[in-house]
Amino acid sequence: MIFKEMKKEFSKKELTKKSQNFSRWYQEVILKTELADYAPVKGCMVIRPYGYALWENIQKELDRMIKDLGVKNAYFPLFIPEKFLKKEKEHVQGFSPELAVVTIGGGEELKEKLVVRPTSETIMYAMYAKWIKSWRDLPVLINQWNNIVRWEKRTYLFLRTTEFLWQEGHTAHSSHSEALSMVQSALLNYKNLYQNYLAIFGYSGLKSQSEKFAGALNSFSYEILTPEGKSLQGATSHDLGQNFSKVFNIRFLGPDKKLHWPYQTSWGLSTRSIGALIMVHGDDNGLILPPKISPIQLIILPVWNESAKETITKKAEEIKEKLSNFRVEVDGRDETLGYRINDWEMRGVPLRMELGQKEIKNKVFTLARRDNFEKLEVKEENLIPFLEKTLSEIQDNLYERSRQFTLEHTHEVKDYSEFKEVMRQKKGLARAFWCEDPVCEEKIKEETKASTRCLPLENIDDQLSGKCIYCGKKAKRKWLFGPAY
Amino acid sequence: MIFKEMKKEFSKKELTKKSQNFSRWYQEVILKTELADYAPVKGCMVIRPYGYALWENIQKELDRMIKDLGVKNAYFPLFIPEKFLKKEKEHVQGFSPELAVVTIGGGEELKEKLVVRPTSETIMYAMYAKWIKSWRDLPVLINQWNNIVRWEKRTYLFLRTTEFLWQEGHTAHSSHSEALSMVQSALLNYKNLYQNYLAIFGYSGLKSQSEKFAGALNSFSYEILTPEGKSLQGATSHDLGQNFSKVFNIRFLGPDKKLHWPYQTSWGLSTRSIGALIMVHGDDNGLILPPKISPIQLIILPVWNESAKETITKKAEEIKEKLSNFRVEVDGRDETLGYRINDWEMRGVPLRMELGQKEIKNKVFTLARRDNFEKLEVKEENLIPFLEKTLSEIQDNLYERSRQFTLEHTHEVKDYSEFKEVMRQKKGLARAFWCEDPVCEEKIKEETKASTRCLPLENIDDQLSGKCIYCGKKAKRKWLFGPAY
Repeated sequence: MIFKEMKKEFSKKELTKKSQNFSRWYQEVILKTELADYAPVKGCMVIRPYGYALWENIQKELDRMIKDLGVKNAYFPLFIPEKFLKKEKEHVQGFSPELAVVTIGGGEELKEKLVVRPTSETIMYAMYAKWIKSWRDLPVLINQWNNIVRWEKRTYLFLRTTEFLWQEGHTAHSSHSEALSMVQSALLNYKNLYQNYLAIFGYSGLKSQSEKFAGALNSFSYEILTPEGKSLQGATSHDLGQNFSKVFNIRFLGPDKKLHWPYQTSWGLSTRSIGALIMVHGDDNGLILPPKISPIQLIILPVWNESAKETITKKAEEIKEKLSNFRVEVDGRDETLGYRINDWEMRGVPLRMELGQKEIKNKVFTLARRDNFEKLEVKEENLIPFLEKTLSEIQDNLYERSRQFTLEHTHEVKDYSEFKEVMRQKKGLARAFWCEDPVCEEKIKEETKASTRCLPLENIDDQLSGKCIYCGKKAKRKWLFGPAY
Repeated sequence: MIFKEMKKEFSKKELTKKSQNFSRWYQEVILKTELADYAPVKGCMVIRPYGYALWENIQKELDRMIKDLGVKNAYFPLFIPEKFLKKEKEHVQGFSPELAVVTIGGGEELKEKLVVRPTSETIMYAMYAKWIKSWRDLPVLINQWNNIVRWEKRTYLFLRTTEFLWQEGHTAHSSHSEALSMVQSALLNYKNLYQNYLAIFGYSGLKSQSEKFAGALNSFSYEILTPEGKSLQGATSHDLGQNFSKVFNIRFLGPDKKLHWPYQTSWGLSTRSIGALIMVHGDDNGLILPPKISPIQLIILPVWNESAKETITKKAEEIKEKLSNFRVEVDGRDETLGYRINDWEMRGVPLRMELGQKEIKNKVFTLARRDNFEKLEVKEENLIPFLEKTLSEIQDNLYERSRQFTLEHTHEVKDYSEFKEVMRQKKGLARAFWCEDPVCEEKIKEETKASTRCLPLENIDDQLSGKCIYCGKKAKRKWLFGPAY
């Protein structure tokens, strides 16, 4: 009875179609493919091994990129004294409503309450103030991989959870130009990760003053269009200027023998990126994982009758061993072929091989691509170059799809009525002239639910002669608008 | 003025001698080599990049070993509902005094208080109860790398801090024998890590019933002798039996169509291992890091006069590039050679090369070993095989020293007066017959401060005819006793 229920739970029919009910599909596909599960703590999730393997692959690539910038990993405390958080005025306003607070420790009421970190600027910069004395101590280039808590009212697996995992880079420099170059390098790393590994197109750009990080001079982000036509902030990189160095009294003696405040940056990417990955690529049949990030790149399904079971399983394991440069698994579970096909399709493995007596005899294998369901024949001797080529094609195809979808749903609008039409019909994003007055931005948001998502990097230096779609006043640059995820 | 102070801070003279004041040396060497720093939160520390690089190297090796057992990584929530912790009676008693408790979330008093995880058995097993239905779902083999909070009254960098980092493996099996085999495999991994990577000798063995993990049937540990003659628990592996599966109602349908409780294990190793590393190998001049774990294996110090500065620095970088299979750094800081030598000596880098015009011309380099201060000449053309051999010798030498020290300070005692003498004189550990009655164990601890550390694995099956050193009753096995760190 229990086995039947399990099979039922996994059967393809049971998965809500992405095209019919996106939000339900999203939650179901995460639960059924065992990426994650709801935890028995409000707003928290458990990242299961299949989901965590995605995070490990993301970490591996991003950690390498971060270290290539000369940044080193470290670890700062989970708890932040409440008074630290209060030092930077905008920062505390931004985070106050989201805090989890420890008031009891070792059975006693604490004299000073401890906040569970919602981000680590304040605890880190208190240490930077201690460590940085001279220009010789700069730049300080530190990153940490850790867990973060922000008390969320409405949560959504991977995308918005009370606790999440991320990396946060925090650097200090002697000049603003050097800090700005770090802000851009970090942003470029995120773009590289999203485009070349997660196969997700997005817009890198400047956030408006009202959408920036609490306490920053300027924020930049990588904005991703979701299948629902919303804009998801995939990663952020902040120019903190001297805001924090002044309130934390970080000062260094320059070569000029005078004391200066360093310029700081912070930047982060979280497990939310896995949410983007699921949303952007998945289809009615389940996940589709980009080969460079997929925990399994090729799944081999032995197809046997009882007599040949041993030979076929052995051959499957042999093939797996020969393909040691790829991530290959053999699924020899005692389940029907149909069940196993559906299961791995739902789990989004890029390539599938069904291996039976015929294939072994003829030395010709048939591989099924997950992204376009194409079936491809390959001679055994050509398997390695074929896999290299095909996995790379799948990776490119997924990125190209994501790019096409985003471009098709990014509308150049010339006036406010067109703008409202795009938003009303949920057609996606709009590029429009805006005078950069926060009043217009606020009004647009009130009336259409669309906010400024970013000013794409390539448009920052524009000097066009346009008119703000809201107030009609002079505007030089076109911003990207859309409903925020 | 500030520069002079900094130099002073780093000068060798300033480091307290390990041989004179161990505890002060330990703290100073950590702060001065920038392994870690005190955080502005009571009992917490900041792990700085040089210290975190050690943790990353430990993680890399241990993670590989854990995955080789078929165990996969995952992530479970930081917060545990208070009621979960209360389910296992011994478990809650063990951890109650050490808890940090969140009572406020999002500005509101929480209805149910949340405990910050002191270990994750309870939150994980609540999920296991949901996931495990049939024998086909077993074994469940999960590990997580995360942060842990235990409210400590007296803290000590790396060895006992309110927050620390670790890995915790948690498995569930259909039979007790399979679970026991996992307990032993995990313990063997720890032994492998300590002996072959951290170069630290220790005793693997069974804990007594009064020293076991709160909630386990049996615990095993790797016990390390500190230079002060105390025994430090370097890692633990627990046979949980069915204790937790019964209280969390984890049940599986067996092939016999009946419901069974699985057998569980948990095992962990923490950043405390870095504390052991510092203690065991360091000397009056500072750290000594084993080559396999050291963030830098060879430090090159260019020695220049102004005219040749460029050539020498270029050559140093060239050598570094040729040695890409090793972890090599060039220290071209504008400091005296003496200062740089002392600094890297204190930081424990296994090999040091001073590179000047003479060395470049003659193509013969001189390398200094950190472990025994030996100076070795090597022709440029032989550098790679020389490094391989010498780093391996240093690794072996450090382990051998640790082994010798431990064996010399482990005393076979035949009666209680000898035992008391060993403990009174702080000579180290004692191996002694004990009847295995907790009353004797308790009395010995009261009178000598020495507790049972473990029953070494090789002695578990002993059937000797001895007498308990305390009560004189029959005893079959010799236990290891010592003051617990």
